[in-house]
Amino acid sequence: MQQVTIDDVRAAADRIRGSVLRTPLIPAPWADGEGDQRLWIKPESLQSIGAFKVRGAFNAIASLDDATRARGVVAFSSGNHAQAVAYAASRYGITAHIVMPVETPEIKVAATRTWGAEVVLCAAGQREAVAAQVVADTGGVLIPPFDHPDVIAGQGTIGLEIVEDTPDVDTVMVPVSGGGLASGIGTALKALRPEVRVIGVEPELAADTAEGLRVGHPVDWSIEDRNRTIADGLRSQPSELTFAHLRRVLDELITVSENDIRAAVRELAMRAHLIAEPSGAVALAAYRVAARPGKTVVILSGGNVEPALLSEILAG
Amino acid sequence: MQQVTIDDVRAAADRIRGSVLRTPLIPAPWADGEGDQRLWIKPESLQSIGAFKVRGAFNAIASLDDATRARGVVAFSSGNHAQAVAYAASRYGITAHIVMPVETPEIKVAATRTWGAEVVLCAAGQREAVAAQVVADTGGVLIPPFDHPDVIAGQGTIGLEIVEDTPDVDTVMVPVSGGGLASGIGTALKALRPEVRVIGVEPELAADTAEGLRVGHPVDWSIEDRNRTIADGLRSQPSELTFAHLRRVLDELITVSENDIRAAVRELAMRAHLIAEPSGAVALAAYRVAARPGKTVVILSGGNVEPALLSEILAG
Repeated sequence: MQQVTIDDVRAAADRIRGSVLRTPLIPAPWADGEGDQRLWIKPESLQSIGAFKVRGAFNAIASLDDATRARGVVAFSSGNHAQAVAYAASRYGITAHIVMPVETPEIKVAATRTWGAEVVLCAAGQREAVAAQVVADTGGVLIPPFDHPDVIAGQGTIGLEIVEDTPDVDTVMVPVSGGGLASGIGTALKALRPEVRVIGVEPELAADTAEGLRVGHPVDWSIEDRNRTIADGLRSQPSELTFAHLRRVLDELITVSENDIRAAVRELAMRAHLIAEPSGAVALAAYRVAARPGKTVVILSGGNVEPALLSEILAG
Repeated sequence: MQQVTIDDVRAAADRIRGSVLRTPLIPAPWADGEGDQRLWIKPESLQSIGAFKVRGAFNAIASLDDATRARGVVAFSSGNHAQAVAYAASRYGITAHIVMPVETPEIKVAATRTWGAEVVLCAAGQREAVAAQVVADTGGVLIPPFDHPDVIAGQGTIGLEIVEDTPDVDTVMVPVSGGGLASGIGTALKALRPEVRVIGVEPELAADTAEGLRVGHPVDWSIEDRNRTIADGLRSQPSELTFAHLRRVLDELITVSENDIRAAVRELAMRAHLIAEPSGAVALAAYRVAARPGKTVVILSGGNVEPALLSEILAG
């Protein structure tokens, strides 16, 4: 199986430049008491749609030839990928059909429509079938959330930026769900700085990839099991493509508890003044339970959290 | 009276480089519907202490000669200036005594101590007298929160960064309290881009500067009146020095209601994923009630808000 290369990631960086926020690294000097500063946060929550997903979606759409792109794009997602595809499509002035389950919170449906997308509501479990029908009806191109080289390469641009900003980074901690983010970032880091330790992070309650890497092949956890975690963006499982990348680029995978995740959301809000969704806070949670020597960058992957849930978490 | 110049601001930028975060401009594409993007946010909440104040404090301390600086620094503040001076002092490895009223919330006292400062608690209304005593006892240098050219010049570095990042900016909106922030930013902007419209923003309930600029001299509002606003960082009044700057650099001053401020805190949290204290959100509030044509930058001046208050505001 052909994997994404550093050249693919560099090409993605050229495509998305000016359309996707070049996020800064935020120093976290409070994190280590009076010693040398060791922690930086990469706040992908500051992207226009509040999550890193816009990088991969934009690169995938930008990579289409003009005639194909003009037919529009299609995606199925109840989460950040929905907004990412909708936003990227709006930047190109093309139609986006986004298939969302009827139980999707109204706030997420509304946010997706903000970018001019056509939302197609469907019954639970019917997303892929309905999306396939929309593709057949419209001739649009399906943009998958992680199982595609262009999507992985787009997410990998985060890795390029980390090396530009902290050439002497020792460790990078990245949330793992479908694995596109960690595959892309790991590809960039291992090509440019092979000595950098790339650590994936999963909730204990959705640790299928941790188990899969231990046994050497993907393992299936039931969706009922994965749905237990508060980190609703980390309930997907890797594809064959992303699992192959993760085996190659991850040095280890750390799991964190639900309480670790909530504490990290609180710390990000109160010390970094950054709003993280629970899925976006797992890398800081991992740093708190298993910091490594040297300089560490944690990826804050997204900030789309319901106000009521955020308030509940802040109340401790 | 001698006012701060663009050369002072440039010298401040050289002094603080590498010690204070070079904040990015965050595009706010959601803010104007489907038209061209017109709004950017300058998130000073991402500074290590959660507010712009570190720029002025750092520049003031950096400007001292070595022998003077070695005697330590003193400040009185129950707010962001306390943390700013404590943090900047810690970077220089010198002692900071911070005088705070006994009624200061414990969370702010603790945050100030995080940076290694000695906190001196005092009775309400005794801050300046106690600080003067500490100066007499320790030989330390008093770092005022806004009434000092080095502090104003430090805050002005924000104006330099705005011009670097958006040379074609049309309007900049800035919170006004003691006036150091608006004086500094306005000085930089008017020197580099005289055509940029610089708009100060105050809460209606603490609009002493709006009234002062109308009548041509500072007017005194009682502290009881000023304390009515939720924007607890905007309850100070300009000094002679800052008022003179404000008269020169502000094109107008807009006042916003308490409801406007709360709505802006919510919008920043839910759309920009940035935590703003009420004082930090007034510029976005002003944009919402009185947007100007062209490209606008709003200053998000700080993010230090109690979790309970943030939750209350998020609940609407």
